[in-house]
Amino acid sequence: MAIVVMKFGGTSVGSVERIRNAARRIMQEVDRGYQVVVVVSAMGKTTDHLVQLAEDITSSPSKREMDMLLSTGEQVSMSLLAMALETQGYQAVSMTGWQAELQTEKVHRNARIVSLKGGKIRAKLDAGNIVVAAGFQGITEDGEITTLGRGGSDTTAVAIAAAVGAERCDIYTDVDGVYTSDPRFVTGARKLHSIEYDEMLELANLGAGVLHPRAVEYAKNYKIPLTVRSSISEEEGTVIEEATSMESNLIVRGVAFEADVVRLTIGYEKAFNGSLAMIFTTLAQHNIDVDIIVQSIVDGTTPTVSFTIKKEALSEAIQVLEEKKKELGFQVADFEVGLSKVSIVGSGMVSNPGVAAQMFDRLRQESIPVKMVSTSEIKVSVVVPQQQMIQAANALHEEFRLSEIEVQV
Amino acid sequence: MAIVVMKFGGTSVGSVERIRNAARRIMQEVDRGYQVVVVVSAMGKTTDHLVQLAEDITSSPSKREMDMLLSTGEQVSMSLLAMALETQGYQAVSMTGWQAELQTEKVHRNARIVSLKGGKIRAKLDAGNIVVAAGFQGITEDGEITTLGRGGSDTTAVAIAAAVGAERCDIYTDVDGVYTSDPRFVTGARKLHSIEYDEMLELANLGAGVLHPRAVEYAKNYKIPLTVRSSISEEEGTVIEEATSMESNLIVRGVAFEADVVRLTIGYEKAFNGSLAMIFTTLAQHNIDVDIIVQSIVDGTTPTVSFTIKKEALSEAIQVLEEKKKELGFQVADFEVGLSKVSIVGSGMVSNPGVAAQMFDRLRQESIPVKMVSTSEIKVSVVVPQQQMIQAANALHEEFRLSEIEVQV
Repeated sequence: MAIVVMKFGGTSVGSVERIRNAARRIMQEVDRGYQVVVVVSAMGKTTDHLVQLAEDITSSPSKREMDMLLSTGEQVSMSLLAMALETQGYQAVSMTGWQAELQTEKVHRNARIVSLKGGKIRAKLDAGNIVVAAGFQGITEDGEITTLGRGGSDTTAVAIAAAVGAERCDIYTDVDGVYTSDPRFVTGARKLHSIEYDEMLELANLGAGVLHPRAVEYAKNYKIPLTVRSSISEEEGTVIEEATSMESNLIVRGVAFEADVVRLTIGYEKAFNGSLAMIFTTLAQHNIDVDIIVQSIVDGTTPTVSFTIKKEALSEAIQVLEEKKKELGFQVADFEVGLSKVSIVGSGMVSNPGVAAQMFDRLRQESIPVKMVSTSEIKVSVVVPQQQMIQAANALHEEFRLSEIEVQV
Repeated sequence: MAIVVMKFGGTSVGSVERIRNAARRIMQEVDRGYQVVVVVSAMGKTTDHLVQLAEDITSSPSKREMDMLLSTGEQVSMSLLAMALETQGYQAVSMTGWQAELQTEKVHRNARIVSLKGGKIRAKLDAGNIVVAAGFQGITEDGEITTLGRGGSDTTAVAIAAAVGAERCDIYTDVDGVYTSDPRFVTGARKLHSIEYDEMLELANLGAGVLHPRAVEYAKNYKIPLTVRSSISEEEGTVIEEATSMESNLIVRGVAFEADVVRLTIGYEKAFNGSLAMIFTTLAQHNIDVDIIVQSIVDGTTPTVSFTIKKEALSEAIQVLEEKKKELGFQVADFEVGLSKVSIVGSGMVSNPGVAAQMFDRLRQESIPVKMVSTSEIKVSVVVPQQQMIQAANALHEEFRLSEIEVQV
């Protein structure tokens, strides 16, 4: 019997009514003849409530105890969802992260999955159960409860799909699919029928927010077709898979954008070779995510490197770099706030060298200054002033004709 | 280093303020040089809230899923308490029932502890931690989460005390000790300095409510001195231990009483020997607790047996007995509601044969009719009309001079 993994996020199980609705969607799949594993997040406001309780106790709770506390959230929603299925006459069992043997590294609050054997889940499936598994949580080899960090439930769903050999993994969420760009801000933004893993990975990394990059990475590695679809409407969603013949006539698949970007520029001693590595090692040790990095060394001048971080991380970044400056001979030369990042993504770009040029030309016509550029095989990102972010996104969406309905080939 | 186990009930961790207060009591014991294991219940209203959520989903949730749901309650309070200790600079780790390896039988919602090795807890203690363990919950050998039923956290505390070889187990609660009778209803009721395990066991079984009988049984078996004391005031509590020399001059140690008792009388076929056993087996299978059983067979009449159950169980008891009546040839002959049970308890009774007579004589003087009598070596219980329950309790408390301060010998 084919297996399908269905993942419901926090808002999709946020109330008794929504839990019943999720149960209905699950029963449909069972009635179609699938064995079903469900992965749930904590109910909408539960996590906030738990975080508030911890904050009432202490301003700096330990990560281990926060994992203990927060992991109760999915345990509540999974048992309620199992009850909702049972009361309709369907056989269901809930499973925590440790019961499902979802093993993670020994890191609290942001652990990565190390292994998931799937045997325990399969045994429950084969005994005729719908398995309702807790997303977001795992266990270390020492028996410590961990959580996976943001988007962790998506990753859990894909990991389980890989472990049990599922036919596909459906992510039920509050949007109905992946769009060419954010329809709230970009005219003509349109839902895609399908998208490739790598494209989705770039979009996810660029803050598209529908799926966590780790989940997409996992799905790509294990070749699990992922579908993003609405938990409310019955509309078709967007399939994320290996090769999407349907839309391969499009060079650019989507436009992503992200506000609140800060550019830092660091000057460092040429004499000390380790400086550049040490800058980014220091930032990584403090969990400060660095995005675009641009460096150019001109003979006879002090070498500098520029990179972008999120606005929230600015004060900590400056602090940790200043602490190291004597030791390593570098210092913050400059920083610029009020920036944003706008990116175009599409696997068709690889064979179309003119895409970046077309992008820069359009931005020039729009009088939008480009502060930094970063490219990969399937995307081009530019850093532009935040006031012109939406203008840039709309212009590029139009430039690459993303609102045109794709031709089904 | 000596180990002490401290148990805090739901009201004692019912708010952030109370969690901080519990932390303060724990730190005192650590500062006195003890290694401390703490056992906590769910925060005051958490369990009610979770039960409500389940009821919103279904009127008949499965016991397995209820255990999954309810076991989150202690996990929340234990992590918050660990945080409260950490923020004061004390090293603490919380542990769930499965992490502590508290193994139970394969029964949901009312499991008994099968074994608890204590090695995991000792390892955490020896690493310098205060261990904050979840009460009320355990794990089966198949890895299923179970709960222990009412009073389960007391039992967890005593089981852990036994497993780690604790010097004593302190139960912090909202009363400040064990009383000769309920001070809300009985004039002159007085807190006892100490009481024997068996006496406490009888009092607990008689509904004294301070401690669960299973916890007392466990403490007796493993000879763990138990103290019941207030989580708010610093007052001394009541010690429950093997032989209490201090108060052995008292024949009767306490008066307990319980309202809402129903007497059922069943007539059955003499010809069928299995009838009597089958009646109580049938009731046990439906989890209907039978208390006092009285039977007398008079030649030439239909044999009858009378027994008491709680008022809440009456309709179910009648239903299950009626269902079996054809098959087994018995039927409900009569039932009487509006009854109560009043008991005197004291290990000194064994050597004082006149105690029961003195009890009956006093009740006769008070014109209180005695409907049923049940005796053990250390208690005498009578069933009397509920309107006269408080009168009977006060009269017996006075009769056996329980308000007099004990002589310390």
